Amino acid sequence: MQHALPVTRAGDFSAWYQAVVNQADLAEESGVRGCMIIRPWGYGVWQRMQELLDRRIRDTGHENCYFPLFIPLSYIAREAEHVEGFAKEMAVVTHHRLKVIDGVLQPDPDAKLEEPLIVRPTSETVIGAAFHRWVRSHRDLPLLLNQWANVVRWEMRPRLFLRTTEFLWQEGHTAHATAQDAREETARMLEVYRSFAEDALAMPVIAGEKPAHERFPGADNTYSIEAMMQDGKALQAGTAHYLGTNFAKAQNIRYQTEAGDLAFAHTTSWGVTTRLVGAVVMTHGDDDGLRLPPIVAPRQIVLIPMLRDKPEDAGVLEYCDALAGQLNGAVAFGEPVRALVDRKAGRAIDKRWTWIKRGVPVICDIGARDVASGNVTYIRRDQLRDGEKVRSQGVPRQQFVAQISELLGGIHAALHAAAKQHLASNIRTDITSFDALGAHFKATDEDSENSEFRGWAKVAWARPQGAALAKVEQQLKSLKLTMRNAPLAQDALAGQRCVFSGEPAREFVLVGRSY
Amino acid sequence: MQHALPVTRAGDFSAWYQAVVNQADLAEESGVRGCMIIRPWGYGVWQRMQELLDRRIRDTGHENCYFPLFIPLSYIAREAEHVEGFAKEMAVVTHHRLKVIDGVLQPDPDAKLEEPLIVRPTSETVIGAAFHRWVRSHRDLPLLLNQWANVVRWEMRPRLFLRTTEFLWQEGHTAHATAQDAREETARMLEVYRSFAEDALAMPVIAGEKPAHERFPGADNTYSIEAMMQDGKALQAGTAHYLGTNFAKAQNIRYQTEAGDLAFAHTTSWGVTTRLVGAVVMTHGDDDGLRLPPIVAPRQIVLIPMLRDKPEDAGVLEYCDALAGQLNGAVAFGEPVRALVDRKAGRAIDKRWTWIKRGVPVICDIGARDVASGNVTYIRRDQLRDGEKVRSQGVPRQQFVAQISELLGGIHAALHAAAKQHLASNIRTDITSFDALGAHFKATDEDSENSEFRGWAKVAWARPQGAALAKVEQQLKSLKLTMRNAPLAQDALAGQRCVFSGEPAREFVLVGRSY
Repeated sequence: MQHALPVTRAGDFSAWYQAVVNQADLAEESGVRGCMIIRPWGYGVWQRMQELLDRRIRDTGHENCYFPLFIPLSYIAREAEHVEGFAKEMAVVTHHRLKVIDGVLQPDPDAKLEEPLIVRPTSETVIGAAFHRWVRSHRDLPLLLNQWANVVRWEMRPRLFLRTTEFLWQEGHTAHATAQDAREETARMLEVYRSFAEDALAMPVIAGEKPAHERFPGADNTYSIEAMMQDGKALQAGTAHYLGTNFAKAQNIRYQTEAGDLAFAHTTSWGVTTRLVGAVVMTHGDDDGLRLPPIVAPRQIVLIPMLRDKPEDAGVLEYCDALAGQLNGAVAFGEPVRALVDRKAGRAIDKRWTWIKRGVPVICDIGARDVASGNVTYIRRDQLRDGEKVRSQGVPRQQFVAQISELLGGIHAALHAAAKQHLASNIRTDITSFDALGAHFKATDEDSENSEFRGWAKVAWARPQGAALAKVEQQLKSLKLTMRNAPLAQDALAGQRCVFSGEPAREFVLVGRSY
Repeated sequence: MQHALPVTRAGDFSAWYQAVVNQADLAEESGVRGCMIIRPWGYGVWQRMQELLDRRIRDTGHENCYFPLFIPLSYIAREAEHVEGFAKEMAVVTHHRLKVIDGVLQPDPDAKLEEPLIVRPTSETVIGAAFHRWVRSHRDLPLLLNQWANVVRWEMRPRLFLRTTEFLWQEGHTAHATAQDAREETARMLEVYRSFAEDALAMPVIAGEKPAHERFPGADNTYSIEAMMQDGKALQAGTAHYLGTNFAKAQNIRYQTEAGDLAFAHTTSWGVTTRLVGAVVMTHGDDDGLRLPPIVAPRQIVLIPMLRDKPEDAGVLEYCDALAGQLNGAVAFGEPVRALVDRKAGRAIDKRWTWIKRGVPVICDIGARDVASGNVTYIRRDQLRDGEKVRSQGVPRQQFVAQISELLGGIHAALHAAAKQHLASNIRTDITSFDALGAHFKATDEDSENSEFRGWAKVAWARPQGAALAKVEQQLKSLKLTMRNAPLAQDALAGQRCVFSGEPAREFVLVGRSY
């Protein structure tokens, strides 16, 4: 069967991902190692995510702010002492001027910084220093902040959206008087991410707690939402950390209690990144390209006028403009519908495939016959084919407009249901021994990127610590597996034993390969 | 007379500015030289500006995208060869890893970059390289892009919002087939900025062309909008550049014309920055703090419940919540009204002054008496005082709600009218000789920051080039003046002679001190 992309998911998932990102005009390499150019269509998806998530973050009482890109090395050093397992792959600014020396532009030796500056990999340190100044009394708490920013973590093996040296994200940082408040905040934001993923991205996820060895360095608890990509790998789509008083102690964030004592604040942080765009690609894309959930599609409906250099063309364009006007006046998902007439030069058939690859939920080819009959001929991107053929259907224009909200809602629901089915049916729950785990996940080749589809397993374990945990890590590593999270929704234990050690189990945890 | 701030505009304008930025919780120093922390209230103003301007930029056909933070040194070197007057104060990344050596965290000598990376001071070079790849045919033009980003230009004398090492901005970059198209684009975006400043920020500006010596390096023409601050200095509030084919030639941006030839594209760029927040402070602020134009105020109305630890308190809170609900259901300036009930702990009178200093357009103190009579007692921030006293007025609640759009519209109009009056009445148009210019602008002390109010002058000049222009620059410098722009709206010349050289004049130009 012919497809719009030169490579299929089944053939080579990794190459397929690259092809979608490229052919849907989402992003491209920039020539700067590990840094991507997010093209207008890709940025449009991110901006939609931003708008919707920003609303949810503000509706839960958080305020946006902006902290500096640069962090003095001494701040990082303080943190590094505090936090073991701290990653050191960061961009370091050492000079503040360029100079032509011997005809060559270079860092000016006379403009060397006394203290190097780090391009922020995350902002706990610089925001913590501000919290230290701002938090005085219990009346100042909770302090609920968020920022939208770029961050840099040097990547040796970059991949567009999934692992890039520079990426865009939001990072929430909050301080609370009590552990309970801070834990409630952590849970609240995890739920914001979970519902955002499901409701806006049509992406089913499992919310749960990361095991100790997968925690954010310095966190008491790290929670995540995990999504299953179509190759069966897990993608961590958002995290929320309860930091206890660890950062407050390192940064001296104290407040006067109602009783007049001084106490350390309890802090949290949480974030999602542009990798969500990659997650949408790998959750919903098919062998014809991207399929966008309508809520985050920059355009939900594209009207392609089929022009023939004949007098009827004017009528076709007029019909398209009037239809777009009607659609943009309609409401779907509580917002105005986003329809576009593609008036660019070019053949209608080429444009159709461009928009199919870009994943626009509804694509309408409008010709003189539609105008004459007052119809709209449309393609649902989520039901593109009938066998080999592209499936399109015609309905009276007024009906199309009247039902547009329902149509878009139906597309969202269908994408969500398919992804949910994929997730639910690809988690093995019958594996009770490490041997069985190994049999299921055995690595057939060295390149885990292109290994066969295996999904996840939900297994019981004893949640050990110390050396016993290190042993579990080794066992997982031997199978190229990672532990994703222990789902918040836990099944009751009925005498299960730990799949790794045979000890009595304490909870169920998800394991799988991951991005 | 007592004021909320410890310093007045007339007493020390520069200290007054600092006090407003500080006491209105807009921003603060970060501990990183030249980099500021934009606090939630300040960021809220910027985010409003962003939302409104983004809409205007998209409505004029531009698409948002995102280019890397880092630019390879070689890109900059290429530009430096091409462009005279190239600024070299830039942050240079030389290492990509930290390492503990002899117990000290420092840049890892083994992780030195082969080619240093520059933190973008502006993105012409990296976007130009992409345009080179993307532009093939006349069908690809115009290419209309914009990005919202942070940029870094090393500042030796930073001032919050006005001159910071890192700042936030939008930068538009476009490519066109013809000079005329590109010139029209430049004019269109200048007009977007002008109308945005007037309509959203209530800030009157004069749009015009910069003289040759004030152009963006590499531009054929640079245009600006100039606003007059309350100390009579000019603030450049936005710029738009017609770059001709200069950048296209340096970066080889060529397209195939309809006739089949290869031709260089004509490019433009244009931007506004977070300095607009500083401009709003210095345009509208008074000796009691900030006064925000309602369109960009994060909250337009704050309701302060006057609580007395008595049983009536519940009724007061209920009344406030119900009123806020009604207000948030109303529409002003085509958007939902933004009202807030300030439920924080603290005395009502302290809260009132907090919100006055923060510049909220309408502040309501709601007490048990208001509840009993069904009234709303409110303060208009733009008409705060009646002599020494704070002026507040009471109206029936239903009337207050019904007229809220009118009230906010009236505040916008009053702020705009006052600023417009200030601008119009402080431009001298009767200066016809350099001696007269010197007499008006004579520097009385070395510290031009705090010099007396002098406003601007609109003078005729011959628009010389080369050595004659350099001489004019010297003349201006001796008076600590800069040339702002030649207004687009030019008065007819009637035999005027150049104020600098006595030659026949070619146009009128604005001169003044500046930020």
